[in-house]
Amino acid sequence: MAAPETGASGEHDLIARYFRPLATDPGAFDLIDDAATLNVGGDDLVVTTDAIVAGVHFLPDDPAGTVARKALRVNLSDLAAKGAEPAGFVLTLALKVVDDGWLRAFADALGEDIAAYNVPLLGGDTVSTPGPLMVSVTAFGRVPPGKTVRRAGAAAGDFVAVTGTIGDAVAGLRLLKQSDGPAKISGEDHAFLVDRYRLPKPRLAAAGAVRSYATAAMDVSDGLAGDLGKLCSASGVSADIEIAEIGLSRAVRAALDAGIVDIKSLLTGGDDYEILCTVPPHNWDAFRSEVVATGIAVSRIGVVTAGSGEPRFLAAGGEVAELNSRSFSHF
Amino acid sequence: MAAPETGASGEHDLIARYFRPLATDPGAFDLIDDAATLNVGGDDLVVTTDAIVAGVHFLPDDPAGTVARKALRVNLSDLAAKGAEPAGFVLTLALKVVDDGWLRAFADALGEDIAAYNVPLLGGDTVSTPGPLMVSVTAFGRVPPGKTVRRAGAAAGDFVAVTGTIGDAVAGLRLLKQSDGPAKISGEDHAFLVDRYRLPKPRLAAAGAVRSYATAAMDVSDGLAGDLGKLCSASGVSADIEIAEIGLSRAVRAALDAGIVDIKSLLTGGDDYEILCTVPPHNWDAFRSEVVATGIAVSRIGVVTAGSGEPRFLAAGGEVAELNSRSFSHF
Repeated sequence: MAAPETGASGEHDLIARYFRPLATDPGAFDLIDDAATLNVGGDDLVVTTDAIVAGVHFLPDDPAGTVARKALRVNLSDLAAKGAEPAGFVLTLALKVVDDGWLRAFADALGEDIAAYNVPLLGGDTVSTPGPLMVSVTAFGRVPPGKTVRRAGAAAGDFVAVTGTIGDAVAGLRLLKQSDGPAKISGEDHAFLVDRYRLPKPRLAAAGAVRSYATAAMDVSDGLAGDLGKLCSASGVSADIEIAEIGLSRAVRAALDAGIVDIKSLLTGGDDYEILCTVPPHNWDAFRSEVVATGIAVSRIGVVTAGSGEPRFLAAGGEVAELNSRSFSHF
Repeated sequence: MAAPETGASGEHDLIARYFRPLATDPGAFDLIDDAATLNVGGDDLVVTTDAIVAGVHFLPDDPAGTVARKALRVNLSDLAAKGAEPAGFVLTLALKVVDDGWLRAFADALGEDIAAYNVPLLGGDTVSTPGPLMVSVTAFGRVPPGKTVRRAGAAAGDFVAVTGTIGDAVAGLRLLKQSDGPAKISGEDHAFLVDRYRLPKPRLAAAGAVRSYATAAMDVSDGLAGDLGKLCSASGVSADIEIAEIGLSRAVRAALDAGIVDIKSLLTGGDDYEILCTVPPHNWDAFRSEVVATGIAVSRIGVVTAGSGEPRFLAAGGEVAELNSRSFSHF
């Protein structure tokens, strides 16, 4: 980020007012330089990047604060699933207009997340666009050398595990798009599901357990079914999943009962931002204990199998569920 | 970048077809993971990010190949000015439509630059947008610990230096926007100036000399006058610049003679992507020799002065030039 003291410009004012106060890490050089410095010592640096676009990844009238938090948190979720500890991030904002009220709310929320997740803002870029608002974040994490947990690594016999609950976000999105949704479930359940859509909770507290015990891992961003397919493909394996073992929230069960979502949409919808991973049976108890000790729930939902077929999702009776659209794609 | 083998999706195909072949670094995990790993050993890692938007930073009908190269090179230019050696980059593409011909040309050109600059593609994200094409790059570079060259550091008495020639890109942009431009100067000069607008030449070969001798440095992206103001502001100094000492190409002199640009627009226009730096007099000869030995021209254009006033640009007669709009701003 460029922030000249002289030569008044809109970009300078914008950065100085909203983002310089957030960039307290010495390596950020107060955002007055062209680049930041990250000293990573002897660790490996994990790099991930994800962008969100108004109307595609969030609703144009979502609050500025949740947009800021979502942009950062979807990237922190990737770091958590790789077993990494956050080390910093850079931010690119593509804005159509400069709206002080919006930027103030955006920066305030971002600052709260920076503190909560202890992840320093190192720099960024602000650009003007005639198109929709877009927020792109590139985040960095540390892992001990060679310890990054990859998608590749799952072996036949490993247990398949997923943190938290699945399907809340897709149900929340449906509620935001359906005007008659709120009446069908309680206000509390409605608020919970909308919050789960708008505000991912990156499972960083579980990163250590993932690093210690998982053979493969990724975060669930494009739907459990499709993302498990990606993990299996990268590992050269398949999997059998018991649908009944997948953690579902009380609110999403209410949404199921009300016909707002069906089970297939929960498994193929996106924005869960939970950790999907595979753990050898002999490490399961240790893994599970360590995750649960952080306050994060974790479910054993199935087992890795040999072969290259698509993972099977088995209903209570044992029949294979048909999941036509297995993953969310923007194209 | 996500690239599932199963679960056919447009995003998967797009990444597999165009970008996986470019991601040959082991840390990129063939772009089938959520994150990449960068092992930086004992060096500091320099991080920079710059985005370009169609209609703002490049013309909507610019060739795909030059868009790809420009997106990467404006970031490599930042690394060069910080004294860093390229270590890798991640790419975010926001696309309105998936046009195979355009993507093929984009990827081919990007692949050539990856090889030419020895900078591995580590990952990225592709998103759909109803707005204009946007390419965001976050690039990483290595420097020995503590050796990042900052904007802050210039001292009174240091010489002010700039590589290459200034103003070519703004003249090239004028020519692309003026239908009568080509007739006024030779076809060769026209082609040179347009190329300078479309294709920055990051001065990476000079990074070592900058690291060894410069007290402060930045790349010239928003105009020499404004960017020098930023460097002086960050360093708490001012400067006196002799306009006659600023390197101008033969082509830009022709554009000046033809009235296509004036000297003020050359000094305040953007997209030069040259290195602006300050060097103590006792190191000048060594710095200049080392830069020139790489085949890059460098001009001593003035001297750092004490004080906090805006840098002065002096005409041949000694009078101070009035530069009303000192820097390009997108807002």
